[in-house]
Amino acid sequence: MSKRKIFRELKSVSEATEIFYKYCPNEILSSETIPLLASLGRVLANNIFSPIDIPPFDRASMDGFAVIAEDTIGSMETNAITLDVIGSVKAGYTFDKIVNKGLSVEIATGAPLPAGTNCVVMVEYTKRNEDKVDIFQMVTPGENVTSAGADIQSGELILQERTLLTSRELSVLAAMGYDKIDVIKKPRVGIFSSGDEIISLGGELSAGKLYDINSTAIAANILENGGDPHILGIIEDDFEQLETQISKVLTSYDLLIVSGGTSAGMGDILYNVVDKLGTPGLLVHGIKVKPGKPTILAVCDGVPVIGLPGYPASALSIHMLFVLPYIRSIAGLSTISESSKLEATIKQRIRSVTGRYEFKPMNIIKSEEGWLAFPVPGGSGAITSIALADGFIEIPEDISFLLPETKVSISLFSDKIKPYSIQIIGSHCIALAHLQSLYSSKFPNYSSRSIAIGSSGGVSAIRRGEAHIAGIHILDAEKGYNLWLEEKIDAIIIPGYFRMQGLIVKKGNPKNIISLKDLKKKNVRFMNRNQGSGTRILLDKLLVEENIKKEEINGYNHYGKSHTSVASAVNSDLVDVTIGIESAVTPDLEFIELFEEEYDFLINKKYFSLKPVQDFIKTIQSEEFKNILTKLPGFRSKAI
Amino acid sequence: MSKRKIFRELKSVSEATEIFYKYCPNEILSSETIPLLASLGRVLANNIFSPIDIPPFDRASMDGFAVIAEDTIGSMETNAITLDVIGSVKAGYTFDKIVNKGLSVEIATGAPLPAGTNCVVMVEYTKRNEDKVDIFQMVTPGENVTSAGADIQSGELILQERTLLTSRELSVLAAMGYDKIDVIKKPRVGIFSSGDEIISLGGELSAGKLYDINSTAIAANILENGGDPHILGIIEDDFEQLETQISKVLTSYDLLIVSGGTSAGMGDILYNVVDKLGTPGLLVHGIKVKPGKPTILAVCDGVPVIGLPGYPASALSIHMLFVLPYIRSIAGLSTISESSKLEATIKQRIRSVTGRYEFKPMNIIKSEEGWLAFPVPGGSGAITSIALADGFIEIPEDISFLLPETKVSISLFSDKIKPYSIQIIGSHCIALAHLQSLYSSKFPNYSSRSIAIGSSGGVSAIRRGEAHIAGIHILDAEKGYNLWLEEKIDAIIIPGYFRMQGLIVKKGNPKNIISLKDLKKKNVRFMNRNQGSGTRILLDKLLVEENIKKEEINGYNHYGKSHTSVASAVNSDLVDVTIGIESAVTPDLEFIELFEEEYDFLINKKYFSLKPVQDFIKTIQSEEFKNILTKLPGFRSKAI
Repeated sequence: MSKRKIFRELKSVSEATEIFYKYCPNEILSSETIPLLASLGRVLANNIFSPIDIPPFDRASMDGFAVIAEDTIGSMETNAITLDVIGSVKAGYTFDKIVNKGLSVEIATGAPLPAGTNCVVMVEYTKRNEDKVDIFQMVTPGENVTSAGADIQSGELILQERTLLTSRELSVLAAMGYDKIDVIKKPRVGIFSSGDEIISLGGELSAGKLYDINSTAIAANILENGGDPHILGIIEDDFEQLETQISKVLTSYDLLIVSGGTSAGMGDILYNVVDKLGTPGLLVHGIKVKPGKPTILAVCDGVPVIGLPGYPASALSIHMLFVLPYIRSIAGLSTISESSKLEATIKQRIRSVTGRYEFKPMNIIKSEEGWLAFPVPGGSGAITSIALADGFIEIPEDISFLLPETKVSISLFSDKIKPYSIQIIGSHCIALAHLQSLYSSKFPNYSSRSIAIGSSGGVSAIRRGEAHIAGIHILDAEKGYNLWLEEKIDAIIIPGYFRMQGLIVKKGNPKNIISLKDLKKKNVRFMNRNQGSGTRILLDKLLVEENIKKEEINGYNHYGKSHTSVASAVNSDLVDVTIGIESAVTPDLEFIELFEEEYDFLINKKYFSLKPVQDFIKTIQSEEFKNILTKLPGFRSKAI
Repeated sequence: MSKRKIFRELKSVSEATEIFYKYCPNEILSSETIPLLASLGRVLANNIFSPIDIPPFDRASMDGFAVIAEDTIGSMETNAITLDVIGSVKAGYTFDKIVNKGLSVEIATGAPLPAGTNCVVMVEYTKRNEDKVDIFQMVTPGENVTSAGADIQSGELILQERTLLTSRELSVLAAMGYDKIDVIKKPRVGIFSSGDEIISLGGELSAGKLYDINSTAIAANILENGGDPHILGIIEDDFEQLETQISKVLTSYDLLIVSGGTSAGMGDILYNVVDKLGTPGLLVHGIKVKPGKPTILAVCDGVPVIGLPGYPASALSIHMLFVLPYIRSIAGLSTISESSKLEATIKQRIRSVTGRYEFKPMNIIKSEEGWLAFPVPGGSGAITSIALADGFIEIPEDISFLLPETKVSISLFSDKIKPYSIQIIGSHCIALAHLQSLYSSKFPNYSSRSIAIGSSGGVSAIRRGEAHIAGIHILDAEKGYNLWLEEKIDAIIIPGYFRMQGLIVKKGNPKNIISLKDLKKKNVRFMNRNQGSGTRILLDKLLVEENIKKEEINGYNHYGKSHTSVASAVNSDLVDVTIGIESAVTPDLEFIELFEEEYDFLINKKYFSLKPVQDFIKTIQSEEFKNILTKLPGFRSKAI
């Protein structure tokens, strides 16, 4: 083993960037010639000067007669001048004789002007009589003719090198006749995953294992940014293995990524391996960034090698900071994709750790004052923070908080990310998913996102402006369901539906559970819903009414986050009973009715007049939705 | 031939849309299963409910010791509680015994919590002594543990059907272990071109012919919008040919496009052909839209067939109006791509034809007040209007003009189009192209577009706000070069460089031209520059000084639009002499000095403080640019 180089000092982002770029090859990659249509989305290698005039010839822009302008002098509606017609020319053909004074040629739009003529008389101002034509209008040289090169002249600089080729540029290249074009090669990126707990997608998920998220996340992002990623599989956390596998492929790629497992020893192994693989070897080991501290930056004999932390959110931060700008720069693209930037306003104070460069996953919603950004709702789990975030903000080391109303620049995870038209935060409900599907099919240009963090969470989200709409069912002992919130938080309630809550047990009810009292039985394992969920609020109220103590229930603190997840826990025998709505009941389960509750929609007043919100309200109130509700067990529309 | 159905009445856009959609198949296409990474940019076919909990097990979030919380009651820094260590567990492995009271297991971050334990004491709060560990902190159940399903619970609805898959969604699918995924099939679109004047890209451009622009333009746009275009080649304008070719492939595609030539008879043939191919056949022939009137909409036995006009700008209008929304809808996408829309303000009155739905190609520039939109500068040629436009606005039939300051919604030609950081309009100059390249390499995140329409055009563009910067050389008989404009139009001049203007002749100077007087010779053919160009203004002034009349010069009215294009006209013997700058002189040409002029940059005051503009000024004044100028024949920096 090579001697250990232990980095006791973490580098700042700017120090790390400087050291890394100093040793990375920084030229734009060489070019390759590919068919025109395949070049869509690629980067042009050279300046393009037009090889031809466009149009390539003087071209009739009207149907009529090609004449010599001087021959029409004096002609007018009341005084035709008659010319001989010596032939005709269609688009795509040429007239092979020279036209002299007094003569004319019938010409179609798009046809080349016959030699000798210098303009076209529109057919409307002529009258044909066999070999003669009467001209009723005087025309000037060039009239109804598009001159050669009027659009583009031979030799003009048409496209600059390093232009990103979109359909527009391809159209222009087609006009000049290019069927092949030189583009900059795509950066080839090799991606390994490492970690004994990581298994490949599609494999069996045995105990203690996790699927490899990072390889796909990184590869997909590289694809979106013009790179050519190659997922190379999972390597064991072992010095020999890492060294053999990496050195075997090192020279085949422009950049090599090893996404680490979270296992403790891992970092130690990789940083020693890269140091042995080539010069200068290890450059940075540990960066003052949150998340993403345990990062390795190395260059081995001209190939940058980056060790990403295993935690997906950390891996993505480092990818955005070091991998992406490098790949884009050698691909001839700007270091950031401008179309993936979005200006937004934050609405709450956001804290940041001083001394660490921070990536904060953000959720974006549209308001009348433009885009608003909120930290990802409902926790920052490895996947939640990716799944629910639209992008992230970067907070430099010396900033410890951002004030409400601060304008921030959001980097979208992908420039294909399209923020949702409406955001719904609140209680999980099966009918809500149906409502969202109906909404998308009635309004194909809208999209909706629903985040289930419980009714109380929905109310807070409306209060903070984080959601357009909240689906809620909150029972107040005195004021009943939901409506009382209108006044309390200055929002608008749109009536939703009634839904039956009950106990869910295994088919045949093996533990013979018929009421809440049976949850006290010693041999009954219960699964609750999450705190803040309307269902849990309802359960607590029913327990008080029936004088049952929480401590008496085996599993009261054990919870699931949705009706479907708790029902599936019963289904798979993890527990004997749970509480939920009837429509979560699958064929292997049974339902015991407890209480019919009201599920309504709380709407933020500030967003009430937005078109997508109004159309969502229309969907709630539609006949189609009423019909859907009648088909869902336990549901009943509030509409009459 | 089938009987002729002649449509005497043009349909409005809304009538045409209604009739067309009535007969088009309107279901979303069926699905196909493809590898996960290949699904990037595709549309999800089904709702995705998580098949697993994420994380799939209770997971240590810190290195330390897995214990039973109750065992740590009372432990503190000054009072350790000692537990037996019965083993260790790493990430990716499981501990196979049940842990009883008083026992503990060493655990690594990411490892599954051993059965019996319910929390982790961080290693910092422990001291290991062989088979024992001292615990210096009291922990609660669940501490330093991420519970199974904390991120995503089994059965949760994670992604809705019809979601566009970006790198974010692929990451979430990877987390659930999907290695394949069901996506909606791509709409297959067949594209024919027709017209005797059209030739395929890469072919020899013989007299009277044009390259096939439409096939590529349409295919590239379809690719950008999730379709699968097939360019099927060029068909002759002949009934039998069209019928045979179209019927042969009709059932292989979800949509068939025939982009017509401009030849007169064409429309007549196609509309008869589609009427014969299947029911209901021809639906619309001619639409009140500008450009794009001669459009054919048909459905033949369930396959929509669209006949696009041959003129590229017209073909694109109809494509955007009828083809694209249809393709996106059967692909399961919203009918418009929201990321291809951009809000902008127009700065001048824009006229529109009443009674015709109008597409206006627009050019976008960034200002401090947001995006500004201008009709495409310098003419509306078929290619210019595509090449220089960033997108278009749609003006309904009943609107005859838009007032300045109207907010408009620009549809970008592609959602990959990135408006340029700065727009330069004005005089063509070879050094300017070098300056732009230097600018992009110094500031890789900026881009610039330069539109050469002459110095006078540049001044007007600055006055209208259409350009950030104009490159100009305008000589006033009394006030000299350029500087006098600062006051006249309230702009700022940034000094550029000196450049030598002269006569350009063939190598060896066969016509023996030594001064402007020689342009009067009968056997000398001259090519001028375009009106409004600084070079032409200079020539006119020199002609007055030398007492030469324009009429005395053979070719005075014959012009080219750039220094390179006129030089290439001399090179290819079209003319004997032209006027231009020395750096346009290629090895086969010779240069006769006339006058050293001043080329400066006029900057719009409103845009002066924009960062990209300031950085362009820095580039003009840089040492690198000075060095470039010394290497260009005939150029001299103004910097000292």
